[in-house]
Amino acid sequence: MDNNLVPKKWCNLLKDFPSLYNESIHENKDLNLNGVGALPRQPLSLLRQSHNTDDADILIPQEILDQYLLYRPTPFRRAVQLENHLNTKTKIFYKYEGANISGSHKLNSALAQAFYYKKAGYKHLVTGTGAGQWGSALAYACKVFGLKCTIFMVDVSLNQKPQRRDLMELYGATVYSSPSTETKVGLDAIKKGYKNTGTLAIATGEAIIFTKNFSDAQFAVGSGENNVLLHQTIIGNEVLNQLEELDIFPDRVYACVGAGSNFAGIAFPILRYSKSHNKNCKFIAVEPIACPKLTRGIYTTDINDFSGTTPLSKMYTLGSKYNSPPIHAGGLRYHGTSSFLSALYHTGFITATSISEEESLSAGLLFSQKEGILPAPESSYAIAAAIRDIHDNSKLDESIIINISGHGLYDMLSYQDYLLDRLIDDEPDEEMIKNSLSEFN
Amino acid sequence: MDNNLVPKKWCNLLKDFPSLYNESIHENKDLNLNGVGALPRQPLSLLRQSHNTDDADILIPQEILDQYLLYRPTPFRRAVQLENHLNTKTKIFYKYEGANISGSHKLNSALAQAFYYKKAGYKHLVTGTGAGQWGSALAYACKVFGLKCTIFMVDVSLNQKPQRRDLMELYGATVYSSPSTETKVGLDAIKKGYKNTGTLAIATGEAIIFTKNFSDAQFAVGSGENNVLLHQTIIGNEVLNQLEELDIFPDRVYACVGAGSNFAGIAFPILRYSKSHNKNCKFIAVEPIACPKLTRGIYTTDINDFSGTTPLSKMYTLGSKYNSPPIHAGGLRYHGTSSFLSALYHTGFITATSISEEESLSAGLLFSQKEGILPAPESSYAIAAAIRDIHDNSKLDESIIINISGHGLYDMLSYQDYLLDRLIDDEPDEEMIKNSLSEFN
Repeated sequence: MDNNLVPKKWCNLLKDFPSLYNESIHENKDLNLNGVGALPRQPLSLLRQSHNTDDADILIPQEILDQYLLYRPTPFRRAVQLENHLNTKTKIFYKYEGANISGSHKLNSALAQAFYYKKAGYKHLVTGTGAGQWGSALAYACKVFGLKCTIFMVDVSLNQKPQRRDLMELYGATVYSSPSTETKVGLDAIKKGYKNTGTLAIATGEAIIFTKNFSDAQFAVGSGENNVLLHQTIIGNEVLNQLEELDIFPDRVYACVGAGSNFAGIAFPILRYSKSHNKNCKFIAVEPIACPKLTRGIYTTDINDFSGTTPLSKMYTLGSKYNSPPIHAGGLRYHGTSSFLSALYHTGFITATSISEEESLSAGLLFSQKEGILPAPESSYAIAAAIRDIHDNSKLDESIIINISGHGLYDMLSYQDYLLDRLIDDEPDEEMIKNSLSEFN
Repeated sequence: MDNNLVPKKWCNLLKDFPSLYNESIHENKDLNLNGVGALPRQPLSLLRQSHNTDDADILIPQEILDQYLLYRPTPFRRAVQLENHLNTKTKIFYKYEGANISGSHKLNSALAQAFYYKKAGYKHLVTGTGAGQWGSALAYACKVFGLKCTIFMVDVSLNQKPQRRDLMELYGATVYSSPSTETKVGLDAIKKGYKNTGTLAIATGEAIIFTKNFSDAQFAVGSGENNVLLHQTIIGNEVLNQLEELDIFPDRVYACVGAGSNFAGIAFPILRYSKSHNKNCKFIAVEPIACPKLTRGIYTTDINDFSGTTPLSKMYTLGSKYNSPPIHAGGLRYHGTSSFLSALYHTGFITATSISEEESLSAGLLFSQKEGILPAPESSYAIAAAIRDIHDNSKLDESIIINISGHGLYDMLSYQDYLLDRLIDDEPDEEMIKNSLSEFN
């Protein structure tokens, strides 16, 4: 593999947009660290990364780079067979982050966080996970850096893919189905009717509360935080290296959005490059119609988890109590979106669209048959949005990039439900969203 | 990805060893095609590939190459972290064939066979599969080339990894657990006590018999045949390209052996190269102690399947009725080994060793923690043999290559059984092997 293509730096976009950073931070209501919103007891190394507006690039520590080199560079390929099938002049490229042991881009941040927490003296990381991709990544990263790991996984996702639990347990993690009876947050959620569904906000709340039982444990977060977005920029930096080899530049970049880390990971470096080189590139954040925080939510101050213990953030949100229809793409069922990403969206630097589960899985299955990669249901949303735009622009000679954030090898049930016409009605009605947003009135 | 590294030719080693080819063929007793042993009704294109001693290289048709380019070149990397852990001077390289949609090297031949059968006018392929890797590959390849697909999967493996069935069905294949009640072979095997275990020989026998129900169906075989070994040489040819970039040459090459296709795939091109360049390289075929055809079997004429309908082959075998202990590595539970490979082994061009399930899974788990790839239980045998030799030679400054033929993402149960001390006794006693071989007395 060509190791020279692997970037040695992360791209810190806060440096490019300090006013947007300030807006997202100053709107925070519950400041618990020198006036800066922060998760409980993050190591200073990670806190600094979330609030650094001075350095355009952050050097990746060698210990993390050594781990990245085990699976990077990740494939960047042209989807020629898909192009032929769609009969389009559009050049479709894709970046594939699913071939590592955890199965998704999440490993990029899990390795970094495990490294920094270990260095700061912690011995145990606790987290909440939706579809299990973040949990798998953190379990593995903790094993690599010698940390204990405890995971609360959203119940509906755990039932859909028990192999995720097996994988996490293989690397020594303890896994609880959320809402669990281990925490008050879980017990409250069960009382409120979330048993057998659960949400990422609840699982996150449980993880945060659970952490307080141990003096040497910390809560680690898989998306949303600026430092997580930073770690994921390894994707976009690598794409820039790969684009340079091919001498092309994209007109549009597609990625799905849960809290925003795989989207930011590919978009931020390309956004910076297109600004500095006067290129015109559109960035499309793709969300499910089941959880449409960007396209139907509001830009306001909200909490990040169900327990309400994390600091408030200014963001696009449907309200932390929003109970998304249980679509297969558990990683996209998060009620809000990263503050900084929300500010970029609010200012028009990125755009958003929403896609139904049916359209998404149809696109994912087509992609697998043409390109030999079975995408995670989450990633399929990005593919579907790209295909929709291609159908609408089939005469144009353009280049696009789709970020395939993970594999779907544990998600066969999703595709079977699609093939057997067993998908749920995933469109939330107006009343449901209105009710959820009413807390902000 | 660097497409230039992907070979455009397969390496036909029959050209290099015509006398071994003749020996393996002339010993066959049941010749049903112009004096040449052959599976029922294979297309001439494939038959010619199995019996071609004229051409050193076979050009890969563009339609197959287009598919190879979706996942090739596959990773060839140095296992630096494993080296550090083992505290060895030996440079450990590995080739990884598990990142494609089917999860193993089997796709290399499945795509080729589906292409040739389709071209010959067949509409439906039927096969037997052990661990499900061949079945997954054939199901996908049939989808790509528009063929119907029916698969008989060894029961014990199907119970261990139901996701394999899901994957095959996702691509439209019909999957039967073998021994099944669909065929006389299956019914006979059930009567003889093979229910809930099954063997690849039975599954293969069922597939062959089942095929006879349809005029447009054919039986496709995942290993053993010369043309399958040929298709797999894409692996070794690609390794030679990758070695050239690195300017190194291996002292030893390790691969696991079921019927022999992943072993032949990496070994044949390197064997040819080392002969023509006066290099000294040792090729180690690694088999489980549960199914030790090379190290404890005999070199004789035997049938390839349980039904006895396939032509007899000269090979190393434990007898087609050998009922291997149900180890997790279902792909290695085959009673015999490819004729040509057997001849190479008999003549001393390759060597063999056997490994216990416990040693194998321990090595596979270690590899995953150090190198970020979870190997298939089959591939773990090769890793274990390599590590054993390294422990024995830790002072030597050598280079070795391990072929990691597939991923273990559907094999978590294997590793859990290892961790929880639930592995079966996998050493067959002397009596069991003697009984199985008694048919040859």
